[in-house]
Amino acid sequence: MKDDTKTPPVRTHQGDFHWDGVEVLKYKQEGSAPFKDVTRQVLFGDAAFPAQLRYFAVAPGGWTTLERHEHVHAVMVIRGAGRCIIGDKSYDLKLHDLVNVPPLTWHQFHAAPEKPLGFLCMVPTERDRPQLPMQEDLVKLGQILET
Amino acid sequence: MKDDTKTPPVRTHQGDFHWDGVEVLKYKQEGSAPFKDVTRQVLFGDAAFPAQLRYFAVAPGGWTTLERHEHVHAVMVIRGAGRCIIGDKSYDLKLHDLVNVPPLTWHQFHAAPEKPLGFLCMVPTERDRPQLPMQEDLVKLGQILET
Repeated sequence: MKDDTKTPPVRTHQGDFHWDGVEVLKYKQEGSAPFKDVTRQVLFGDAAFPAQLRYFAVAPGGWTTLERHEHVHAVMVIRGAGRCIIGDKSYDLKLHDLVNVPPLTWHQFHAAPEKPLGFLCMVPTERDRPQLPMQEDLVKLGQILET
Repeated sequence: MKDDTKTPPVRTHQGDFHWDGVEVLKYKQEGSAPFKDVTRQVLFGDAAFPAQLRYFAVAPGGWTTLERHEHVHAVMVIRGAGRCIIGDKSYDLKLHDLVNVPPLTWHQFHAAPEKPLGFLCMVPTERDRPQLPMQEDLVKLGQILET
């Protein structure tokens, strides 16, 4: 995990949602779970801090992994538009909307077909690993995913 | 402290940096410390979560209290422009810049004269109270504050 003791006081936004000294990372290892056109940047990831703030960029038409976990997501959209699935509902998302993903709740973020979706996501530094849906979960969720 | 178990999954941005169900609060009690034209909104403040995400709005020409504390601030500008004092330096701030305030470091945020400054600030849920500067600290900081 990143050591933020060397993080400078101000890291400038270089434009286009890239920052001084912030690396653009793979969202997940390829093949570990289904997703499309997502990157991850850890904006604040000090191991001594109890939470992390990450920035996720979903390209137009892309989507994050459908997953759930014990830990909570606290999200703010800071770019573009799209929608999210939280539990058994789908919600439209636009700039600066807030999303609260409760524990063990299926969730997925989709960029709009012609707009990216960029969002901040605050998570606890110590957190459980995501669970992927089984076939029976997908059947239950099918109606939402098809909309 | 707020109980987020009743927080809906999506809280819509109503425009102008106000959100569904998010109250605009006083920055601090009047007279508790010097500041000018600042409000506070707790976007994510669940007592069970290890960190909080707040939004601070500083009106044009306004400024936050000059203070320091053991806990770290992780900040992103999401509106307008201004500058911040961190330790013994002053930094210009613009949209989406990141600010990291280390432990026990004097800091203050100033909006530009003709632009507001709005920023997100992530802090640990359990944190120490801010310390205000003594006369000797102000003398040391004087040169920075006058710039």
